[in-house]
Amino acid sequence: MDETAPLLTRRDHDSIATLTLNRPRARNALSAALLTVLREEFARLAEDTTIRVVVLAAEGPAFCAGHDLKEMTSYRTEPDRGAARFAALFDLCSQVMMAIPALPQPVIAAVEGVATAAGCQLVASCDLAVAGEEARFATPGVQIGLFCSTPMVALSRNLSRKAAMAMLLTAEMVEAAEAKDLGLVNRVVPAGTALAEAQALAAGIAARSSYTVRVGKRAFYEQVEMPLAEAYAHAGRVMTENMLARAAEEGIAAFLNRKG
Amino acid sequence: MDETAPLLTRRDHDSIATLTLNRPRARNALSAALLTVLREEFARLAEDTTIRVVVLAAEGPAFCAGHDLKEMTSYRTEPDRGAARFAALFDLCSQVMMAIPALPQPVIAAVEGVATAAGCQLVASCDLAVAGEEARFATPGVQIGLFCSTPMVALSRNLSRKAAMAMLLTAEMVEAAEAKDLGLVNRVVPAGTALAEAQALAAGIAARSSYTVRVGKRAFYEQVEMPLAEAYAHAGRVMTENMLARAAEEGIAAFLNRKG
Amino acid sequence: MDETAPLLTRRDHDSIATLTLNRPRARNALSAALLTVLREEFARLAEDTTIRVVVLAAEGPAFCAGHDLKEMTSYRTEPDRGAARFAALFDLCSQVMMAIPALPQPVIAAVEGVATAAGCQLVASCDLAVAGEEARFATPGVQIGLFCSTPMVALSRNLSRKAAMAMLLTAEMVEAAEAKDLGLVNRVVPAGTALAEAQALAAGIAARSSYTVRVGKRAFYEQVEMPLAEAYAHAGRVMTENMLARAAEEGIAAFLNRKG
Repeated sequence: MDETAPLLTRRDHDSIATLTLNRPRARNALSAALLTVLREEFARLAEDTTIRVVVLAAEGPAFCAGHDLKEMTSYRTEPDRGAARFAALFDLCSQVMMAIPALPQPVIAAVEGVATAAGCQLVASCDLAVAGEEARFATPGVQIGLFCSTPMVALSRNLSRKAAMAMLLTAEMVEAAEAKDLGLVNRVVPAGTALAEAQALAAGIAARSSYTVRVGKRAFYEQVEMPLAEAYAHAGRVMTENMLARAAEEGIAAFLNRKG
Repeated sequence: MDETAPLLTRRDHDSIATLTLNRPRARNALSAALLTVLREEFARLAEDTTIRVVVLAAEGPAFCAGHDLKEMTSYRTEPDRGAARFAALFDLCSQVMMAIPALPQPVIAAVEGVATAAGCQLVASCDLAVAGEEARFATPGVQIGLFCSTPMVALSRNLSRKAAMAMLLTAEMVEAAEAKDLGLVNRVVPAGTALAEAQALAAGIAARSSYTVRVGKRAFYEQVEMPLAEAYAHAGRVMTENMLARAAEEGIAAFLNRKG
Repeated sequence: MDETAPLLTRRDHDSIATLTLNRPRARNALSAALLTVLREEFARLAEDTTIRVVVLAAEGPAFCAGHDLKEMTSYRTEPDRGAARFAALFDLCSQVMMAIPALPQPVIAAVEGVATAAGCQLVASCDLAVAGEEARFATPGVQIGLFCSTPMVALSRNLSRKAAMAMLLTAEMVEAAEAKDLGLVNRVVPAGTALAEAQALAAGIAARSSYTVRVGKRAFYEQVEMPLAEAYAHAGRVMTENMLARAAEEGIAAFLNRKG
């Protein structure tokens, strides 16, 4: 294994940034170092106006196996038995997960292989997800005495309560097709094509006004936690501002011209 | 086109009011005038104790194409580039959308053809929806630079997050059958029968105690945004009052008599 | 009918408590007496560290027909026409329903036959539910003038809005397979095997660390009503504490040893 290989790679193509988790031999476990570079990369992308959509993929047969348990276990030798480092790690992880809805660009997960625990949470946290038909999902922490409590935050905002509870309490593997039924992924595609399909989906979104996409994504997560009347008041302000932007002025004019 | 034709027609039959959007040549686009008459009609219905259920249908091949972009574009000549009028229009539109859950009577959408943008929002805002099998749904604003930000308020309260995001970001057309799977409509029926099926569904509801239906609908939207304990406290008060009403007293007595 | 038969039976086997509603001739209607023993039993189970999972089943052909309308009708002779007793009954019922998510142990409904009104609510309130393929669900109060207002609190936290509204407004019977699609039950199994399947599911969960299961279940319901950032902060604290517990320390060590 090349110790100097980057933990995360980024390739930009036609305003789409593809981030690839690159710890294949560790099943792309989210070590503190990998979480840190993810956080940094998301911060960089947030400022990068040349990028319109982000695709999140993974190297190797597993998408992401969740936290790096070996590394976490090493913290137990600390005087506080690791308490402070565990807290810092979960905080870092939550920052990464919350950075995805907070990112101006849509983020599309491209999943092949298993996505478990925080790896499943990563998929749930993305705006959209495309899964190869052999992809599988689980939150199996209960099997090793560590309930998937932070993953369930994202999971329970995607799935119905009983479906989320079943995954959390039974640790069962959910096949891609069922994951689509449950709301965890948007599309199931032939095995091995998830990345290409996610990039094609990204290209479609990247062809739109990036201003408009950013405005809409931000408003989505803002309004979704508000009571109805507040949500409408907010969305109405957003849409008024959107109407005054050049993207809408030109887009609507072109649309009316096409209609004749 | 008959310029004097009403923008919205209402036909009452057996305590069911059928409202029909009547701008077929404009694909029933929600002009300020049409939104205004919708708001007025909902206000009238709210006071009309002879009406027990409302069906919302549309004239012509399209259910509703959303906002009237031509009219909105005309606002751009104002000194403020239309800002005040856009804000007023979105506010009016949100009032109409919020009037539906606030109406004492259940409202059932009967959808044939396409329901897009604010037209899709109209369906999402109804209590129930019946769709002809060729009905299609989309929130395509992103294609013309104007994100469907107000439609997403209703959409994201009906669909899972990733399903709503996919519609909003990709503008893709969703077929009736998928719309049912996603939670946007309740029933898919043969093309051309949505109105008759919605009216039959309405007749079933209209045969119940209108007091009971009103009490229940109001409580539904009140409790759905509350934390669990508060929701139960509220629903318990509602149900106690319901028990003391004549509808429940007679209904329960008749039920016990039938059982013998 | 044996008047001295208990209204609720409990059998413990291998750390699984099976509670069985035992008013088969009254279709297991939730009389004040049955609700009271349910509340007491849940309170007892909450303190019982020998029990890891609870299965909730029913004797006879119906799972549970909801409130005991005959008993409720008898309250109408009170000077206040029953107002105080109705309020007390709905409060008691809500306490029972809320005791289920509040219970430290997961609760799995095993449903055969019909589960209607508060009986349907009982299923919705459980963490997981297994249904025999002939099980059926409804909230038919509207038929007798008494809207299922307290059942809808649980129902609308399991189903999409339009699906919940359809059940509440139309009183229609929902078959087991559709109940699964809607999110009301997790699994549909051959008729007559729901109890055995629920117990097998329970055995799988009971084989895990009960500390971990309890921590996770409690955190689930706590975080699900919080805004995202607050939910993550809470879940991070829970998970840090979980890491320091023996269950996780031993479970993770064993896992790493197995991997070699």
